[in-house]
Amino acid sequence: MKHKNYNNDLSGFGRFFFFRGLDAHPQLRSRFELMIKVAVVGGTGYAGVEMLRLLAQHPAVSLEVITSRAEAGMPVARMFPSLRGHVDLAFSPPDIERLQGCELVFFATPNGTSMTMVRPLIDARVRVIDLAADFRLRSAEVFERWYGLRHGCPDLLEQAVYGLPELNREAIKDAQLVANPGCYPTAVILGLAPLIEARLVRADRLIADAKSGVSGAGRQESVAHLFAEAGDTLKAYGVAGHRHLPEILQVLARINGSEVDLVFVPHLVPMIRGIHVTLYAELLRREVDIQHVYEERYRREPFIDVLPPGSHPETRSVRGCNTCRIATHRPGQGDRIVVLCVIDNLVKGAAGQAIQNMNLMFGLEETCGLASIGLSP
Amino acid sequence: MKHKNYNNDLSGFGRFFFFRGLDAHPQLRSRFELMIKVAVVGGTGYAGVEMLRLLAQHPAVSLEVITSRAEAGMPVARMFPSLRGHVDLAFSPPDIERLQGCELVFFATPNGTSMTMVRPLIDARVRVIDLAADFRLRSAEVFERWYGLRHGCPDLLEQAVYGLPELNREAIKDAQLVANPGCYPTAVILGLAPLIEARLVRADRLIADAKSGVSGAGRQESVAHLFAEAGDTLKAYGVAGHRHLPEILQVLARINGSEVDLVFVPHLVPMIRGIHVTLYAELLRREVDIQHVYEERYRREPFIDVLPPGSHPETRSVRGCNTCRIATHRPGQGDRIVVLCVIDNLVKGAAGQAIQNMNLMFGLEETCGLASIGLSP
Amino acid sequence: MKHKNYNNDLSGFGRFFFFRGLDAHPQLRSRFELMIKVAVVGGTGYAGVEMLRLLAQHPAVSLEVITSRAEAGMPVARMFPSLRGHVDLAFSPPDIERLQGCELVFFATPNGTSMTMVRPLIDARVRVIDLAADFRLRSAEVFERWYGLRHGCPDLLEQAVYGLPELNREAIKDAQLVANPGCYPTAVILGLAPLIEARLVRADRLIADAKSGVSGAGRQESVAHLFAEAGDTLKAYGVAGHRHLPEILQVLARINGSEVDLVFVPHLVPMIRGIHVTLYAELLRREVDIQHVYEERYRREPFIDVLPPGSHPETRSVRGCNTCRIATHRPGQGDRIVVLCVIDNLVKGAAGQAIQNMNLMFGLEETCGLASIGLSP
Amino acid sequence: MKHKNYNNDLSGFGRFFFFRGLDAHPQLRSRFELMIKVAVVGGTGYAGVEMLRLLAQHPAVSLEVITSRAEAGMPVARMFPSLRGHVDLAFSPPDIERLQGCELVFFATPNGTSMTMVRPLIDARVRVIDLAADFRLRSAEVFERWYGLRHGCPDLLEQAVYGLPELNREAIKDAQLVANPGCYPTAVILGLAPLIEARLVRADRLIADAKSGVSGAGRQESVAHLFAEAGDTLKAYGVAGHRHLPEILQVLARINGSEVDLVFVPHLVPMIRGIHVTLYAELLRREVDIQHVYEERYRREPFIDVLPPGSHPETRSVRGCNTCRIATHRPGQGDRIVVLCVIDNLVKGAAGQAIQNMNLMFGLEETCGLASIGLSP
Repeated sequence: MKHKNYNNDLSGFGRFFFFRGLDAHPQLRSRFELMIKVAVVGGTGYAGVEMLRLLAQHPAVSLEVITSRAEAGMPVARMFPSLRGHVDLAFSPPDIERLQGCELVFFATPNGTSMTMVRPLIDARVRVIDLAADFRLRSAEVFERWYGLRHGCPDLLEQAVYGLPELNREAIKDAQLVANPGCYPTAVILGLAPLIEARLVRADRLIADAKSGVSGAGRQESVAHLFAEAGDTLKAYGVAGHRHLPEILQVLARINGSEVDLVFVPHLVPMIRGIHVTLYAELLRREVDIQHVYEERYRREPFIDVLPPGSHPETRSVRGCNTCRIATHRPGQGDRIVVLCVIDNLVKGAAGQAIQNMNLMFGLEETCGLASIGLSP
Repeated sequence: MKHKNYNNDLSGFGRFFFFRGLDAHPQLRSRFELMIKVAVVGGTGYAGVEMLRLLAQHPAVSLEVITSRAEAGMPVARMFPSLRGHVDLAFSPPDIERLQGCELVFFATPNGTSMTMVRPLIDARVRVIDLAADFRLRSAEVFERWYGLRHGCPDLLEQAVYGLPELNREAIKDAQLVANPGCYPTAVILGLAPLIEARLVRADRLIADAKSGVSGAGRQESVAHLFAEAGDTLKAYGVAGHRHLPEILQVLARINGSEVDLVFVPHLVPMIRGIHVTLYAELLRREVDIQHVYEERYRREPFIDVLPPGSHPETRSVRGCNTCRIATHRPGQGDRIVVLCVIDNLVKGAAGQAIQNMNLMFGLEETCGLASIGLSP
Repeated sequence: MKHKNYNNDLSGFGRFFFFRGLDAHPQLRSRFELMIKVAVVGGTGYAGVEMLRLLAQHPAVSLEVITSRAEAGMPVARMFPSLRGHVDLAFSPPDIERLQGCELVFFATPNGTSMTMVRPLIDARVRVIDLAADFRLRSAEVFERWYGLRHGCPDLLEQAVYGLPELNREAIKDAQLVANPGCYPTAVILGLAPLIEARLVRADRLIADAKSGVSGAGRQESVAHLFAEAGDTLKAYGVAGHRHLPEILQVLARINGSEVDLVFVPHLVPMIRGIHVTLYAELLRREVDIQHVYEERYRREPFIDVLPPGSHPETRSVRGCNTCRIATHRPGQGDRIVVLCVIDNLVKGAAGQAIQNMNLMFGLEETCGLASIGLSP
Repeated sequence: MKHKNYNNDLSGFGRFFFFRGLDAHPQLRSRFELMIKVAVVGGTGYAGVEMLRLLAQHPAVSLEVITSRAEAGMPVARMFPSLRGHVDLAFSPPDIERLQGCELVFFATPNGTSMTMVRPLIDARVRVIDLAADFRLRSAEVFERWYGLRHGCPDLLEQAVYGLPELNREAIKDAQLVANPGCYPTAVILGLAPLIEARLVRADRLIADAKSGVSGAGRQESVAHLFAEAGDTLKAYGVAGHRHLPEILQVLARINGSEVDLVFVPHLVPMIRGIHVTLYAELLRREVDIQHVYEERYRREPFIDVLPPGSHPETRSVRGCNTCRIATHRPGQGDRIVVLCVIDNLVKGAAGQAIQNMNLMFGLEETCGLASIGLSP
């Protein structure tokens, strides 16, 4: 297995040290043929093009293949002019053998696709990061209920690692198959985890009021997400049940040690990128310094920024970057907690988190290729 | 008192019948000199210009005076080109005597202005509708704490009627001084009133997650509300305490018969108009048909539209009109209720509601001049 | 022919006088069964729903039929919640016999549909206003070149009247079939007509730099017009040739008495409604008062507002209303003229102009049902 | 002069070679104390914060001072949360001595400020890049007419180099004082230069129809640029004369060898960043391959991307990056040319171009620190 070889060959240096030293020297990596050979399956959606933006700027990656059945033959930069001069590849039809020639395959496909393609890659010891929902839920039955699809390889569900580094860092490092979290779950879980881990709040009274930019709905033909439909207006959707709810419940239950109950109301907001979740919880005991709990929990996390008390993070402060900013509030010093948490749904909520997972899997500095500053204004 | 004369002079016809019949015949009203003489104090903010838009189209109103100290002499339609051909007046400096010549004065001024001008109008039996906060809170002390201003005429607070017709219709009809509700309070109170009136939910566990378009911040010079600051981003604000919170608490407490506790988190959304509140409450008993409760409560309300079960109202469905649309949800059929409620912050949340109050005060059909359809897309 | 009967029956009153008097008295019109029976074919696009908004508020219209093949059976107000309480009809499949029972049929269909349905209506003396392009071009050959469709009834092209009242008012009054102009042509022609009529500029050096909101692209499934694609960005399109160019050239040539040459560059702007055209022309002689020319030309036009010298109209000043605002400039007092012209593409550029045409055709006051003020902000 | 010392000390290596090799090794530069010591005067406007974003990511820069009189003492990252973790400085009051301790000072101040501060820096051989208009016009008289300010140091105007690298690369390398071009002039000049240099078009018939995002208006308190004023609308402004016009005319005249005449109409567009100019010109001779002319002219330019024939660049394709994309059109193969040109007004139109100039002035690779990909969507 290729990525294992690295560790062996470079054992004298120490994998971490060596890669870290090379992060800023892509030309050296390249000279030693240490660039990670990467493929992206499904490069035409928003998660896909964001993968391309980040991979093209990553110093340790060699982007080998970008597949799109529908656009095979089309130069990538013709479809996405922002990539002109940065990505020279054309889309190719998905071909398992070519993918097997890579060390890592990202799936940025619609739900239900990766589960039909992953097995031969796993068998060939190619590592996989799936940005879709196929391997996020541990129960094939739950998957089938929420996604309306029969699961193609339920036996792999147990093997899949939920790719939220702030919860699962060690498991991700050695994972063969990583299920990259959904955008809403990333924000909700990062926002609630410190409270639940520390058993500070009632786990059966949680509320997540979530607001997402329209890119969260994907780059598919649609009337509902036309500019003239989604512009200058706001609405909730999916109050009766959104697919990200079981994912959130599963992870929070694991943290909690038992089931949790959470009301989840997503809203569509007239902005392009960004998720803001407003989280409500009830304290079990009043003598606690919530701010301190969050600062301690995320002290060493390179991508979690706990803001000073009284702050109100805005989504644009993380536009285009992998950071998650969190602020805690306790209105009137009562027993109710409000946590505000923002991410860029396409970066920390999708492609950036996938790169972060890749960095962990291949022994790179976790922030490698992810150091850019949010674009504001 | 002028408006009383109407009733006397027209007693043979019946005030209601007569005015109703004339609603569609402004030229007849005009011939009989029955047009209501109206002034707007502070016509340069968003509530002010929206007052002008609605008053200019109202069949029973004669707009006599529009004041603005800063813009005195400027033709209104030069500042607001959308009014060209509809409003011929120029702004004039505020002059109590000219205002006393009107039957009704609307204040669309910043907080703290109307309380310095209202008394001589009241004394002259001119009726007043104040769109600012000066007379909304019943306690001068609470007002002073939240607005940082000493109240100019606390004795009028008791006399002022809170102008939410769906709660206070009869009192408004005879009111001399109406405090037009805030935009957030209008949406939150209309959304929660049926639950609290029917004692269906815990009154100490309420949550209002509110989202507002940027016009809610007013038409003042500001960096924070520039297009390049407020566009393509979303943030919460005022979590520690927003001025509309005491207003909401006061009204809900009156409905409830005792104090309520509500967490209120407003958010700034990159849209021009519109408020969406997402309300969370906990049922006290499970065997109840929430949808039915709302439909019954608002059955006769001309401006409240209870949507079918499972609906998600969008703010644009009320853009420019005085309607409030409400949908109820009970996720997973549990004990938690989610109510979605949308209004146009400048219409039902300000100028439209003021017109609705005027209609009630002067014996007109409540919907007179407010029948237009929301602009969508 | 039904609409002729009106004239006969009411000859004693004079058609104009009578209808004018009734404009504000819909209940009287209704009592006399004088409401115009109207159908809309294709009510699910933006022009269609805007027709419904305006027709539902029109005092002389009885909306009888709204067709949509795809949505037959669906209540209109379920698809367009802004119409709740105002339109009670459901979409019905297009049925020629039912349409023949109306006096006027509006086609708000995609290009190429009305030409397959109009003939039996014309034969039944039902009047038709077509909002699509089918009858705008006088030459079937030109139509076929630009629209890629064989024309279904070229013999009707000559009979069709181009429905721009400011040019063709008298012909429209008696027309059986009106071709409602395109949105860009409306703005460009109204902006240039005074210069060309007065032979003040070189007719072979015209430029129209046009900017349109995204609703101009229609309410169809599309990737290019998603909020996340069309938001926060601007681009030109169709520089090589846009379908509205031959329409503009045809009308300007008629005004000019000979061919004109115009470069037309449309741009897609991240706003919902509105067209702004910036027109460039070269003066043939320098001693001329352009402002005066425009004011004289449009002095009696109820929907054309020539702004004072030095003005810059903004599209929001006409949002939702049928007005066209125009400003003229002569930078540096040289020989080049800049004309700025704004309309709402869905109102004066589509549905409002159709209503204006209807008013003319049925002897109503031209502004009947079109008096509302633009929604600003 | 400090920056000269580099050349001396490193003469054995060759300044170019040495710096290029170090571009990717900031830690080595740092070890050798070769980081360029940089100050930003006026860091609170949009150009200022964009300077900070780019400088914080630049491998050869040590950001020493950020001044703001109004915000002195405020940590930069508190005002601009997107910079949290990237910029640790606080704003300091402008202090000439501290600035003199730097090698390069960027002025991102309002027009009229740098001319009062530059001289002591120049005297101390500190190099200066001014992002304001103070040194763009070669004539103090023209400056005073358009900016309404008496020029503070007209003798420096001749020494100042107009910082458009694609025109003035060699002069910039040795300049002491660089006048960074305006945003509109950058786009207009880059779009027209190839035509004028090659004498292909009439220089007295040029038109620039320009569209800008609202950040171009700056980060100052303003009513006109509030979200609720500038959103969902479009308007032209400054048709009678915009300050960028004399700057454009001056540069084009220099290219042309004699005066040019250009009509310039800027428009305000509801987007945050981005400029799109649509340029119109008349060919002097018809047998010419315009596309080829542009491709040849810009073949070696790292930041100019000439798109394939028939393209329509969109502003978002350059959002956040220093690229200028250009497309040429010749509608109907006639004698009129349309050139479409997009830049990010804050990057190539301001801060990015300033960095590009710095790279040239200090012998760095021209693209150093400017390689990021546009953020799209």
